[in-house]
Order: sequence, then C-alpha cells, then structure tokens
Amino acid sequence: MSVLAVGTVAFDQIETPFGKRDRALGGSATYITLAARFMSDDVNLVAVVGNDFPEEYVDVLRDRRIHLDGLERRTDQKTFAWGGRYHYDLNQRDTLFTDLNVLSGFDPVLPEAYRSSRIVCLGNLDPGVQAKVMDQTPDAELVLCDTMNFWIEHTPDALKTILARVDCLVINDSEARELAGEPNLIRAARAIRGMGPKVLIIKKGEHGALMFAGESIFSVPAYPLEDIQDPTGAGDAFLGGFAGYLSGCPVLDVDAFKHALVYGSVVASFTVERFGPEGLYDLTRAEIASRIEAFRDLTTIPLSRVEG
Amino acid sequence: MSVLAVGTVAFDQIETPFGKRDRALGGSATYITLAARFMSDDVNLVAVVGNDFPEEYVDVLRDRRIHLDGLERRTDQKTFAWGGRYHYDLNQRDTLFTDLNVLSGFDPVLPEAYRSSRIVCLGNLDPGVQAKVMDQTPDAELVLCDTMNFWIEHTPDALKTILARVDCLVINDSEARELAGEPNLIRAARAIRGMGPKVLIIKKGEHGALMFAGESIFSVPAYPLEDIQDPTGAGDAFLGGFAGYLSGCPVLDVDAFKHALVYGSVVASFTVERFGPEGLYDLTRAEIASRIEAFRDLTTIPLSRVEG
Repeated sequence: MSVLAVGTVAFDQIETPFGKRDRALGGSATYITLAARFMSDDVNLVAVVGNDFPEEYVDVLRDRRIHLDGLERRTDQKTFAWGGRYHYDLNQRDTLFTDLNVLSGFDPVLPEAYRSSRIVCLGNLDPGVQAKVMDQTPDAELVLCDTMNFWIEHTPDALKTILARVDCLVINDSEARELAGEPNLIRAARAIRGMGPKVLIIKKGEHGALMFAGESIFSVPAYPLEDIQDPTGAGDAFLGGFAGYLSGCPVLDVDAFKHALVYGSVVASFTVERFGPEGLYDLTRAEIASRIEAFRDLTTIPLSRVEG
Repeated sequence: MSVLAVGTVAFDQIETPFGKRDRALGGSATYITLAARFMSDDVNLVAVVGNDFPEEYVDVLRDRRIHLDGLERRTDQKTFAWGGRYHYDLNQRDTLFTDLNVLSGFDPVLPEAYRSSRIVCLGNLDPGVQAKVMDQTPDAELVLCDTMNFWIEHTPDALKTILARVDCLVINDSEARELAGEPNLIRAARAIRGMGPKVLIIKKGEHGALMFAGESIFSVPAYPLEDIQDPTGAGDAFLGGFAGYLSGCPVLDVDAFKHALVYGSVVASFTVERFGPEGLYDLTRAEIASRIEAFRDLTTIPLSRVEG
C-alpha cells in the first residue's frame, strides 16, 4: 500500500570522527522514502530542490522506484543545504549551517496520484507546510508527524494546530520534554498525547525508543552496533521504515505498531553504519529480516522463572 | 542461598526537586542488602560505621533480617557521609561533599559464617578493599563488582587487578566508556570483558541496562515511572536485586542472568519512587512480581509478522 513522505531533499555536509562528506545527498524525505521502499512498492516523495541539484542524486531515488512526480524543481533558487559536525562520542552534534534556499518558499501541490496515499509521513518542516499536505490527503488512514525544537520554539501555535490533526507524533526525548515543559518523559508523553496524537513515539538515539499507544508503553533498544559511521538521518530512516512497515499491515492495531517500531529501528541501524543514506542504497529485505531476528534475541525475556 | 555484600553504610544528604533529606540512611551496602533480601533469607552485610551512627538505622536493617555480624563499629571516628543535589531533570547530579571518615581505614575481616557465601557483591569501594573481601570468600560461585570513575582515574592498577578476578562487572555507561577509553559502548564492552569479567552489565539510568554475557547482548529498559522522587541508590538496589535473584537460581546460566537483570531493574524502580532506601522498606514480593509482569508487556515483541 502507498506511503507519502513530505520533507527535504538536501545537500548535507557531514563531519564525523570517521570521515567527511560535502554536498552529499541528504534530507528527511530522502531518508524516509529510501527506508519506506522495502515494504512498499508505492512510495510517493514530496519535496523541492533547486537549480543546482544533480541528476545523479535524483537517479539514486528513481533507481529505487520512489515516485518523484512530487519532486518540484525551482530554477530560480538553490537546494536546501545543511552542515553538521559530530563529536567524538557521536551523541553530540553541532549544526554548522542551515541554508533554507528553496525551502523558504515551499508550497507543495500534490500530484493527483499521490492524494489517495494510505500512510502520510510529515517530515520535519514548517507546521504550516505540513498542514497543506494534510489538506491534500484527506483519505489518509494514518498521518505520522515529525518536528523539531525550532518549531516548538518559533511556531508553537501552528505546531499545536497540526498536532491536533495527526495520528502519530515521532520526536526525540529532548523535544518531547521541551514540547510538554516537563522533564519526566512519561508525564511528558501523557501531556503530548493530550494535544492530539493517539500514538507517540519518543526517539532516544543510542538508547532506542519508547512508544505510547492505547494503554500500552512499548520500549525498544537501539540495535547494538560496533561501527557507527554517521548518525545523520537515523531518525528519518526510522520514520520511513516505521511507515513502510505499517503500509503493509491490513489492520493498524497496537501489535502492528509494535512490529513497525522494531522494523524502523532495524532499518535505522543500517543507516548509521554508513555515511549519509548510503547504508540504505543496496540494503536487502533478507538483511533486514536477519537483523530483526537478532533484535528479538536482544530483547526477549526468557519464559519460565522471573517471579518475585 | 547466601549473598554477601560489602560496601558503605552511610549518612546521605539528598536534595531533589521533590524534597530534601539530611543524615538519611544511605550507602551501597544498605541498598544492596535491602534489595537482595526479597529473594534470599541469608544476606550478609559487610561495612563500617562510626560512633555517631544511630541504633534506629541499624534496626532498619536488622528488622529486615539482614545479617549484621559484619557491620563494624569504630568508636574513634564518624560515619561515612555523602551529599548530593539533583537537577530539575534528575539525570544530572552534583556531589556536594564526600566525608570518608571511617571509610579511610576500612579493613574488613569477615565473620566465619560469611565466608561460605555463594554470591559476593563488591559494592563501589577502593579496589584494594574489594580484593580483601574476595580473599576471604574463596568458595564464592559468583563475584559481582561495582566501581566508579574515581577508582578508574586514581587506582587503575588495583582496579585492573580486581577486574581480572571478578565474574561480573556492573558499571554505568560513562564509566564503561572511561574505563575502556572508547566512546562506542559495544566496543567498550568488548574491551572491558577482555580485562576479566565474563559478564558485563552497563547501567544507563533512565535508559535501562545492557548485559553482555557469553555471545549474547541483552537489553532492558528502565521501568517507566511518572513519579521519581530520588534516584539515589538505584544502581545499588539494582545490584542487590540482581544478586538476590541469582542466589535463588540452581544454575547460573545466561537465562538466569537475563531474569536477574529484569528483577534488578524492577527492584530499582521501586527505590526511586521514594526518598533514600524508603521504597525498599515495606516492598513485598507480590508487588515485585506484579511489576515484573508489566515489565514483560513493556518489552515483548508480539509473535507473528515482523519480517523483512
């Protein structure tokens, strides 16, 4: 079934202790769609690039059967660009620059074929832009939303408006604390769900993720890796894997969400093992399936015993 | 079966956003033994207190059937005292003071009845003192060891000597990174296990714990709590619960360790809901058992589906 992802397609400048890339393919919509495609043959990208965006980057996506009718090209501006530098322990990152360029005037108009998408992923963008995409996908069964501290701080009203409309919010732990104004994550989750999203996923980087759905809390670790090259895009790849998994589920119940959380975590783990989105380029469903099995071993409490 | 715990019995001054305690009962041996007693009727405490230590605090331990023959009383010195202040988000703590007092001359001589203890817990202490306890418990089936950054930095050789002797090391994530000189936790774990401990547990506070045992990595979250009053002693309560659980296991295999990790995490969760060790005072096995069930729901990936 179909997944639509709106977000950025960008040039990323990335510095980690293990290497450097300049003008690499990046952006939330890039990672989301590359991750969603393993479980969906119908992945619809919505983004804008500028006159400097190379055809070879478009081909990376096209070759992986991502639908690009919604990739707008503005001939009068440059592509959105972001630069970041990771510290020695990779959990700390400094943003070096953020050049909005084409993004400042982004006003997505969805191709007709996109409008019936079943799962809609609103990548981290101005909440007003996210709302415009929701307006054009009224039949979506599930709307997933990402955001960041910038929108929490600068456009709180627009953010509240979109939160009241979406089904599932996916944010990181510091953003959750900031959005709720509450340091305790469980209380923060309760407050955020009160703003609208029935399902809340709190990403914790190397510490995994927590999902709040119905009455249940579900915790997954990050898949343990010895070689992390570049954490860029891990959250977006998680979101794409999560959305892609759900697009194949006939019923979107709590069990489906739990499976999707594991699936998204595993896809994200492949992302960080390489620079930029490269870890997603040649990844296979068999490799994902194998790591899901290992993930189960990592978290399964053996039956028998364990009583108080 | 029997558990021996050596560590501190202390006065703690604790400040959190939710309250303050002065000269509260504290210390690693206090938390370890109070947590171990739920699964063992034979918990042997080894520690030293000074001439200012009140009998009512001794009674807290005695009333809970902890063996106190190994609690030395020095009439010429004061009790070890520690003070700490937690920040608004409880993950940050400043140490206000550490008054070693009796601890500086601690030279434990174990009561005869203690020497056949099956599980030995070396609470965070000078590695030289930990070694003296190991020398007096040659028949222990399992020796668990805690340590901290102070010993990593100031007595690295003594620490390496004790690490080569113990079966299981329990430390937090920043200590693991420092001990191994390696920011990646999985690589750090490999390096530390190379120093001796067959089993390594890395505590991550609100993010749970990772255990490395045999070829397996096992991850548990922290039990999600809305009301955390005081994180003091959570790591020691975890260690005590872990040791207590193992003391009841006929075979100390990887499954037993996994169960013990869940058990220790659950006991620790009760600790942080109250100030100091108060959460352990009247806790029942039924309450622990009930939370273990909830813990299973928190982490169990549903069967069926989840394939790549």
